[in-house]
Amino acid sequence: MGIQVHLITHTPDPDRTVAASAKLCYSDSSVSDILAEIEPETMKGFITHLLRSGHMSPFEHATFTFGIDGISRVCTHQLVRHRMASYSQQSQRYVSMTKPSFVTPLSVVEEDSLNRIFQDHCNAAHEAYLELLEKGVPKEDARYLLPHGWKTRITVSMNARELHHFFRLRLCRRAQWEIQDLARRMLIAVKNVAPILFAKAGPDCVVKGKCEEMRPCGNPFSSYIELLEEPLLDY
Amino acid sequence: MGIQVHLITHTPDPDRTVAASAKLCYSDSSVSDILAEIEPETMKGFITHLLRSGHMSPFEHATFTFGIDGISRVCTHQLVRHRMASYSQQSQRYVSMTKPSFVTPLSVVEEDSLNRIFQDHCNAAHEAYLELLEKGVPKEDARYLLPHGWKTRITVSMNARELHHFFRLRLCRRAQWEIQDLARRMLIAVKNVAPILFAKAGPDCVVKGKCEEMRPCGNPFSSYIELLEEPLLDY
Amino acid sequence: MGIQVHLITHTPDPDRTVAASAKLCYSDSSVSDILAEIEPETMKGFITHLLRSGHMSPFEHATFTFGIDGISRVCTHQLVRHRMASYSQQSQRYVSMTKPSFVTPLSVVEEDSLNRIFQDHCNAAHEAYLELLEKGVPKEDARYLLPHGWKTRITVSMNARELHHFFRLRLCRRAQWEIQDLARRMLIAVKNVAPILFAKAGPDCVVKGKCEEMRPCGNPFSSYIELLEEPLLDY
Amino acid sequence: MGIQVHLITHTPDPDRTVAASAKLCYSDSSVSDILAEIEPETMKGFITHLLRSGHMSPFEHATFTFGIDGISRVCTHQLVRHRMASYSQQSQRYVSMTKPSFVTPLSVVEEDSLNRIFQDHCNAAHEAYLELLEKGVPKEDARYLLPHGWKTRITVSMNARELHHFFRLRLCRRAQWEIQDLARRMLIAVKNVAPILFAKAGPDCVVKGKCEEMRPCGNPFSSYIELLEEPLLDY
Repeated sequence: MGIQVHLITHTPDPDRTVAASAKLCYSDSSVSDILAEIEPETMKGFITHLLRSGHMSPFEHATFTFGIDGISRVCTHQLVRHRMASYSQQSQRYVSMTKPSFVTPLSVVEEDSLNRIFQDHCNAAHEAYLELLEKGVPKEDARYLLPHGWKTRITVSMNARELHHFFRLRLCRRAQWEIQDLARRMLIAVKNVAPILFAKAGPDCVVKGKCEEMRPCGNPFSSYIELLEEPLLDY
Repeated sequence: MGIQVHLITHTPDPDRTVAASAKLCYSDSSVSDILAEIEPETMKGFITHLLRSGHMSPFEHATFTFGIDGISRVCTHQLVRHRMASYSQQSQRYVSMTKPSFVTPLSVVEEDSLNRIFQDHCNAAHEAYLELLEKGVPKEDARYLLPHGWKTRITVSMNARELHHFFRLRLCRRAQWEIQDLARRMLIAVKNVAPILFAKAGPDCVVKGKCEEMRPCGNPFSSYIELLEEPLLDY
Repeated sequence: MGIQVHLITHTPDPDRTVAASAKLCYSDSSVSDILAEIEPETMKGFITHLLRSGHMSPFEHATFTFGIDGISRVCTHQLVRHRMASYSQQSQRYVSMTKPSFVTPLSVVEEDSLNRIFQDHCNAAHEAYLELLEKGVPKEDARYLLPHGWKTRITVSMNARELHHFFRLRLCRRAQWEIQDLARRMLIAVKNVAPILFAKAGPDCVVKGKCEEMRPCGNPFSSYIELLEEPLLDY
Repeated sequence: MGIQVHLITHTPDPDRTVAASAKLCYSDSSVSDILAEIEPETMKGFITHLLRSGHMSPFEHATFTFGIDGISRVCTHQLVRHRMASYSQQSQRYVSMTKPSFVTPLSVVEEDSLNRIFQDHCNAAHEAYLELLEKGVPKEDARYLLPHGWKTRITVSMNARELHHFFRLRLCRRAQWEIQDLARRMLIAVKNVAPILFAKAGPDCVVKGKCEEMRPCGNPFSSYIELLEEPLLDY
């Protein structure tokens, strides 16, 4: 079982909220009136226009909150580098890691001999952790020997502008596989409730049709559909 | 008629969202399970604890979006200095100021002779603006002569943590009166939908019972109720 | 006389600081060792690579502080919308506007009849302002009738990443002319002390050779040199 | 050997830069003139006043860049949660961890039997890591089994406002010991070059003489000197 992503809450009617806020800039009506009157077709046209020309600031008015479980601390260390977001993470200082619970990379899972090394080591780490706890070492110190791949839980809030930025960087095939998988699950979740805001999202190959990396992956996505249909990881 | 503040949307169930996100840090359950199970009394106790000890980061998971009309550009220039927020403002480059529409400060309104000077000047400004437009000056240039007090519209999103910070600074009696009035209207609006998150908010005299300004106002609020019952301005 | 921009201070040796910080990510040496050893040619190659592929985070380690005078409040209201920056602005609540001091847009200056309307109006505004002050109106209220074009002073700190973003948006010919002129002056100042970090900067027509605006200006810059040699405004 | 902190660069003359920027708000002179004229005594008085009343925004104009080595990934995961800062971190995706290099908590070091468990486990982890690499597992995957305590390097830029916030939270005795030690080393480094800006800094017990935590540590610092003279950790 891989990462679990639940969209636990979000700004209601995110497409409409963004479209109305953006329209305010060019209108002599109040945002309440615009909200009440804006037509679905206008909304769509307006947001598509903003997306294409990169005028993303109105996208900030729609926020999405995710509950994420089964993610490694390798991945959360990368995730929290995104500073335009809010995080609440399970603390290893306060919560005991009572059972072994870690992410095994696919490159390891798929080969028995590698998998054995990995499982044996991580289980041994957990035993050593428990032994230290038992001998009086504080949780916050004993965890120094737990593997990077240890699982954690985190609540994340990001607005639609930051999500677009996040998807651009983290759905790129050059991103690390675990955060790619996380990003894909997050995209599927938000696309469901904000189909216009995320009518298109992802790395430059998908959105701009062109990669600007010095060392491209060599295997760009040919379409948004391909990006969305990439299988989710189950490890 | 003073500023109009409409809370146009917000994270649903903001108290619960914050409490559950905070609880995650100290728990071995998923945030979805915590959300489902958390009791109102626990929520209240937990949030009160966070507020008192200043552990405000979980407050970021609840976001509020306001539509604001009838606010002067004096006030929005101050408002947008709060950087942990999102703004969409009516543009004077694209929208014509067809009618005179400006804020007259109370210190001026209340005295006929002052008011006459002010009204005459602002109406003259608007006429000069229209004359420049007519003679081919672009809107974005003609507005250089419109008074600072000119009215504008703005959509603002802030999370509950930033709102607490905003209320702390801007509900202080030393803050400028227009932004004080704006802040009071915003507080009333959010308190209505997030009574626990904003069970207490405001300047240090209200929240900490003590002012740290070098030059205090000399007239601190004696209670949160006094702060909330201060009359809204109608000018 | 237009805007005056003084680069009052900045991170010493900005090119080297950014290059060494970036190199750390891919190296097994300490940043101090990298700083001591990095060759000018390596620096240049490395930064050019970061710029081209949009890996801008190391650019944040070089910060620039500008003292800006003679700028209108129209322009500072736009400027302070850039949230990844630090601002200290002259306060109209505390400082009296003793002399008339305002920006007259070029579209107005160039035509005597328009200019007369504008000057007369702004001088009248200042007289009304002084009259209100004299009659006991607080500075913070009297200024509600001062024109938007009133001059102010502001200290701004931005790091090189945010500066690139700022130059991208504000050196576009579709940006408002005053902030365009401000941005050009800031670019010239930083290019002088950080020639590699700003070896190229500006709107998409300059940096990417292609505009993504829905309504392009129709007059894109053909080169970085053209952008830099655009005459500074003197009004 | 514990964490190594090098202040690799900073805004020149940080005290003066902040004082002059702050003074601009209340003055009719340009910041360049203020910078030239401001007297050391005025600087000190002014900054002390800002610190006491919590008007910290001018502190943002002084930025400090640290090269940090020998820090665990436990600690950097906490560190990068401070979002008002810039980071460049050594990548475990690109750099091989050729030698065992990890932080052993003091609670473990001090007791031979615990230390043996810890060292044995971490050395075994490194051997398993190397074995996986040898068998073709990518670095970015093999590191999933390296212990949390693994050492890393990071370049950090923070301005003086964020540093005050960082010191307030992370020099509290309730903070985790490794980040406390990091913060103390950073404070000593900046105090050296910006004695006025950091004339006082630290947790509430030091700065406000009073703790607001629900569960205080029971052992507050009695003075700033005590905080500064706490021995640095050498493990």
